[in-house]
Amino acid sequence: MEDKNMLMIPGPTPVPEKVLLAMAKHPIGHRSGDFSKVIAELTENLKWLHQTQNDVLMLNVSGTGAMEAGIINFLNPGDRVLVGNNGKFGDRWAKMSKAFGLAVEEITAEWGKPLDPEAFREKLEGDRDKQIKAVIITHSETSTGVLNDLETINKHVKNHGESLIIVDAVTSLGATNVPIDAWGLDVVGSGSQKGYMIPPGLGFVSVSARAWKAYENAKIPRFYLDLKKYKKATDENSSPFTPPVNLMYGLQASLKMMKNEGLESIFARHKRLTQATRGAVKAMGLPLFASDEAASNAITAVAPLGVEAEKIRSVMKKRYDIALAGGQDHLSGKIFRMGHLGFVSDRDILAAISALEATLVELGHDGSLGAGVAAAARVFAQS
Amino acid sequence: MEDKNMLMIPGPTPVPEKVLLAMAKHPIGHRSGDFSKVIAELTENLKWLHQTQNDVLMLNVSGTGAMEAGIINFLNPGDRVLVGNNGKFGDRWAKMSKAFGLAVEEITAEWGKPLDPEAFREKLEGDRDKQIKAVIITHSETSTGVLNDLETINKHVKNHGESLIIVDAVTSLGATNVPIDAWGLDVVGSGSQKGYMIPPGLGFVSVSARAWKAYENAKIPRFYLDLKKYKKATDENSSPFTPPVNLMYGLQASLKMMKNEGLESIFARHKRLTQATRGAVKAMGLPLFASDEAASNAITAVAPLGVEAEKIRSVMKKRYDIALAGGQDHLSGKIFRMGHLGFVSDRDILAAISALEATLVELGHDGSLGAGVAAAARVFAQS
Repeated sequence: MEDKNMLMIPGPTPVPEKVLLAMAKHPIGHRSGDFSKVIAELTENLKWLHQTQNDVLMLNVSGTGAMEAGIINFLNPGDRVLVGNNGKFGDRWAKMSKAFGLAVEEITAEWGKPLDPEAFREKLEGDRDKQIKAVIITHSETSTGVLNDLETINKHVKNHGESLIIVDAVTSLGATNVPIDAWGLDVVGSGSQKGYMIPPGLGFVSVSARAWKAYENAKIPRFYLDLKKYKKATDENSSPFTPPVNLMYGLQASLKMMKNEGLESIFARHKRLTQATRGAVKAMGLPLFASDEAASNAITAVAPLGVEAEKIRSVMKKRYDIALAGGQDHLSGKIFRMGHLGFVSDRDILAAISALEATLVELGHDGSLGAGVAAAARVFAQS
Repeated sequence: MEDKNMLMIPGPTPVPEKVLLAMAKHPIGHRSGDFSKVIAELTENLKWLHQTQNDVLMLNVSGTGAMEAGIINFLNPGDRVLVGNNGKFGDRWAKMSKAFGLAVEEITAEWGKPLDPEAFREKLEGDRDKQIKAVIITHSETSTGVLNDLETINKHVKNHGESLIIVDAVTSLGATNVPIDAWGLDVVGSGSQKGYMIPPGLGFVSVSARAWKAYENAKIPRFYLDLKKYKKATDENSSPFTPPVNLMYGLQASLKMMKNEGLESIFARHKRLTQATRGAVKAMGLPLFASDEAASNAITAVAPLGVEAEKIRSVMKKRYDIALAGGQDHLSGKIFRMGHLGFVSDRDILAAISALEATLVELGHDGSLGAGVAAAARVFAQS
């Protein structure tokens, strides 16, 4: 049905009306006193969201641009880095690191499985002469719905003492607890079209004092993505280059909504949505791609076996106007992914699960109709 | 007065209501078939606007990011490049080129004066062993309101035969004729918050076949700004990284408006607005910063002499809710700049000029009241 689209993909995620209307305001000059106040407010609220006193910088880039800035500003060609690779995004950071001449050692796991923190411990403990300059980790792997054990991996990095930890928190920030200061995370990159509840176009990078120290000796050439330029401007409530003013209006509105809801409530909601989704999928007899222990709070990937993933996506889209994501790379056609990240409510999950049940019946799958919705409802009744 | 803001700065420029409302639509998935159609439509209309069959690529960056992509994808560290520097942006491209290890020779002119094409001819003719790999030129220098003679400089580049020409058309594209194919411009960068009539957040780079040839041997490390990734995706009506979906909705609306108006009419309107503004400023007894011959069709810079530029800007803002831009760097406080770029009409110029007259009287300047508006009206009567 025209204009009835419901986004259940891992990004762009649904955008609240308040945010859409905020974005539809006429822009003002980005060098004006009025806009300085906007930047000051955003910076303060971003630090709240990031649970940090570190710098949190706004860039006019996608999540990939934010991660590139997070990598190239703190390292030198030839630097040894460990890159966790158990999905499309881990793989992307490995490729990116190689493109900038870093000596990449990949620590891999099968897509759908979490990275083994022990593998990091071994490499880091074995590095007696402290040659490992950074560990690059995707927290929530968007391509598979796997949450990597950042907390444990980071402890091994902290025991190493020299390596930075650089985190892709694109689909974890604002959905899962990422306590930057409590854990001592050096660099954390994220993007606007996820937990932030605004459309794509803004990237964020948080930077620790330790990372700024590494910056001083980092020689990979950079200009547009030179984070010191952003820090200098942000300290003056300004921006080094023209910022995406209207997206920042949207961010003002969404951060206010997030503060009203509160961090604990936001994380609890995402956990609840995840448990309801996973409970429903299990009750429908469909295999979950990630285990319960490694489940992302942002995305649930389903491997539908006898029923083709692309057929499910097609019916969900055409009949129920619900957009699901497909599998990426070698998982194309083998899984579908349901995003439950950002501006998503209990009602959205009930709607999506009941539509999924109806879709499976239409496709001849013999799951017991109603079981999924019942399972989701039971999760909601208890939390 | 609250919400009565009128933007007469060189960017962000005024945004039509149609564009604002298009941006306030809920995003859809950027990997969906529906969004492929949006990309296809935008790409076709961008080629129309750029007057080219070359690739025109959309990036989630500011104009500076677009220029960086336009430089680093086609050159190698140590390459000799000529950079025209007669203002803040020319200066920025020189600094950027140096940051990436290029052997920069700057061809300078005083801020407010155009670059001398002869200086380029001499360097290019003197380069017998074809060591100059690129000439980097800011077409309309936003910081001073000077239009550089791109057509003549480009002829000298074409006579050289080997060098690429890389153009910052940020405040010329969509305001002034930049016939990419007719002139054979290799790389042209621009940004959304100018002639495009949409808010900041999108950058554009057009790339010629000759530039793609240079790409094959270009070794400056890149990933997010790797234009081949954008070309490959654009050829499939897709994008390599998550694109700013809502800004692209806005661009759909603005490009339709531009096609309705027609290129010739758009250029004629900008010329008329410029002549009216300049005629008015002269009639008010204020010195123009750029000569008539080198006047940008996007921005008019005024050096108000006895009256302080910042006082004028302050009264214009506080009393008349008109935002003017100040001078940048050493011109801070010495000039003000009036943008007449993008969604600007004859009426806007009359409003701004009459407000400027009223402001000057309030500040004790003895210009003959009404002379500016009369001069502007005479231009409009004749064109």
